[in-house]
Amino acid sequence: MTSGLDLRARLDKALQEFLQQAMPPVVSIADELVPLVSALEGFVLAGGKRLRPAFCYWGHRAAGAEDSEQIIRAAASLELLQACALMHDDVIDRSDTRRGAPSVHRRFAALHRAEDWRGDPEGFGEAAAILLGDLALIWADTMLADCGFPADALQRAQPVWDAMRVEVMCGQYLDVVEQARGGGSVDRALRVARLKSAKYTIERPLHLGAALGDGGPELATALSDYGLPLGEAFQLRDDVLGVFGDPGVTGKPAGDDLREGKRTALVALAFAAANDAQQQQLRGRLGDPNLDGDGVTVLREIIAATGALAQVEMLIAERLDAALGALAAAPVTPVAEAALSDLAAAVSHRTG
Amino acid sequence: MTSGLDLRARLDKALQEFLQQAMPPVVSIADELVPLVSALEGFVLAGGKRLRPAFCYWGHRAAGAEDSEQIIRAAASLELLQACALMHDDVIDRSDTRRGAPSVHRRFAALHRAEDWRGDPEGFGEAAAILLGDLALIWADTMLADCGFPADALQRAQPVWDAMRVEVMCGQYLDVVEQARGGGSVDRALRVARLKSAKYTIERPLHLGAALGDGGPELATALSDYGLPLGEAFQLRDDVLGVFGDPGVTGKPAGDDLREGKRTALVALAFAAANDAQQQQLRGRLGDPNLDGDGVTVLREIIAATGALAQVEMLIAERLDAALGALAAAPVTPVAEAALSDLAAAVSHRTG
Repeated sequence: MTSGLDLRARLDKALQEFLQQAMPPVVSIADELVPLVSALEGFVLAGGKRLRPAFCYWGHRAAGAEDSEQIIRAAASLELLQACALMHDDVIDRSDTRRGAPSVHRRFAALHRAEDWRGDPEGFGEAAAILLGDLALIWADTMLADCGFPADALQRAQPVWDAMRVEVMCGQYLDVVEQARGGGSVDRALRVARLKSAKYTIERPLHLGAALGDGGPELATALSDYGLPLGEAFQLRDDVLGVFGDPGVTGKPAGDDLREGKRTALVALAFAAANDAQQQQLRGRLGDPNLDGDGVTVLREIIAATGALAQVEMLIAERLDAALGALAAAPVTPVAEAALSDLAAAVSHRTG
Repeated sequence: MTSGLDLRARLDKALQEFLQQAMPPVVSIADELVPLVSALEGFVLAGGKRLRPAFCYWGHRAAGAEDSEQIIRAAASLELLQACALMHDDVIDRSDTRRGAPSVHRRFAALHRAEDWRGDPEGFGEAAAILLGDLALIWADTMLADCGFPADALQRAQPVWDAMRVEVMCGQYLDVVEQARGGGSVDRALRVARLKSAKYTIERPLHLGAALGDGGPELATALSDYGLPLGEAFQLRDDVLGVFGDPGVTGKPAGDDLREGKRTALVALAFAAANDAQQQQLRGRLGDPNLDGDGVTVLREIIAATGALAQVEMLIAERLDAALGALAAAPVTPVAEAALSDLAAAVSHRTG
């Protein structure tokens, strides 16, 4: 019916169609807005795993709703919300790259330099990325509102949509606070993971699709039982990839999270199990912006030697099991059960 | 019926009630979110002229709709959108103050210092202000959707709401581009003014209220004929206040726009009429972050001596006349005509 590849192509087409009608009124205001909206188009069409739309789509089908262009458009709108979250996150983290290419604020800093404009190119780049993120957040809303579902379906979806948007921004803030605190708490790291990944990436998209398909509270609970542990598995896999991932697959430099000093559950577990010498190395090197390949290797070895890596792999496996167990017991259509089972495996074992 | 003062109190009450039910679910996620949502509450309740809500309310009454709590809530939601625009603007402009108090990013930089957290306090402050602005943008949407109007009224309002949100962000971007270019074009400065002030502050709020009141296209056109020139008058007054305003009334340091190097129509007109010596002074001092009181006085004198100030006052008077003329001919209720006439005078002659 709708294989992963098919779904991706249909989501991309929906995004392209939405942008093709949303962009001209903006561009007609002033030519200077062309680079801005083009950057958004490039960003959403260039990459991304389309995970949130996939969960939204299958949450809809799980409720017994038919495949439709409406649900494709509604699901695709999540990519615009995600574009906002990523652009703002990259400004906050001062990240140079995203999806293997320069981040939006870096692109606009480059535009500033190319035009030989006045003032600080980096400041200009950040301004553009903040405002383009805002535009993406607004367009996410427009795309969902215009997706073609009747008013009563949209009304059912609205509380989920509102909660989802609020939670992702609050999750980002707690993440920033956690980095500022220097981390150290496995509990707090998992709380951030729950918000940013379990709820925002998986549970809420499932609920959004289910609400648009008129799924009842029993289905919503079952989807949470599947989605929340799977979301934690997703985030824990993300933590592992941020340290051990292959740059060719992740699109981020090797050991990027180490250089950034990200306080993940993986790092918190490594700290908890490290001996004095290992603690000293971790403290000295984590968050060093100039950390080189050798430094990355040293930290990787310590994180593996403390047993933290193995512990995280076990946590991932446990959560995947819990998700699949909940799915088997859930009142969902067989076609959705098969797809959600595949998605669970893909999310937990992905390499990028 | 609803005097300016009454309206303000009712708008504030609606905002307070919305936040009182929106904040607890966020705070229940984590205690660390208390300062974040409290900062938003403080920001929207502390100040602001409530201009956009007033135009929205009177656009509604102009369409012949009755006074209601629904329109108060819908109008008040514009203050949350404005909170987003201002918080992000202050990050972009690196402004220290807003509404006579430290800007949001400065407040969170201070929190970072008080907690003795790791990393750059300014970076933390900016992150918080970006994310809190996002939250305000999301809550604006929620407050409008939940204002109590039936689905068909909200559906009529949606295209206006979408256009308004897109325009304010695009206006901000064009403003940033204009500063980076070093300005110099009266036309481009007026184009930014049209987007940021004429459309966003006046025309769109009028249209939003009218759409919620089922006003037809004839009314929308009449409201544009009134709102667009008035919006330009508003922005031109803003330009004058940014240079000549009393800090005790504006809540901003004296000559703030000069220190920032803002390329307004007033400045563009001064450049166009300046002799060589005046041009040199303007070029040398505009945008100097260390410009002191004497420097502000020198620039004020030049801007007045070139005749630019008098020209802008004339432009304001012309636009106010045009707005009042359009209002007299507009198919609006008498109560709305009186209120919109008062608002026009207040907007054009305000001192802060």
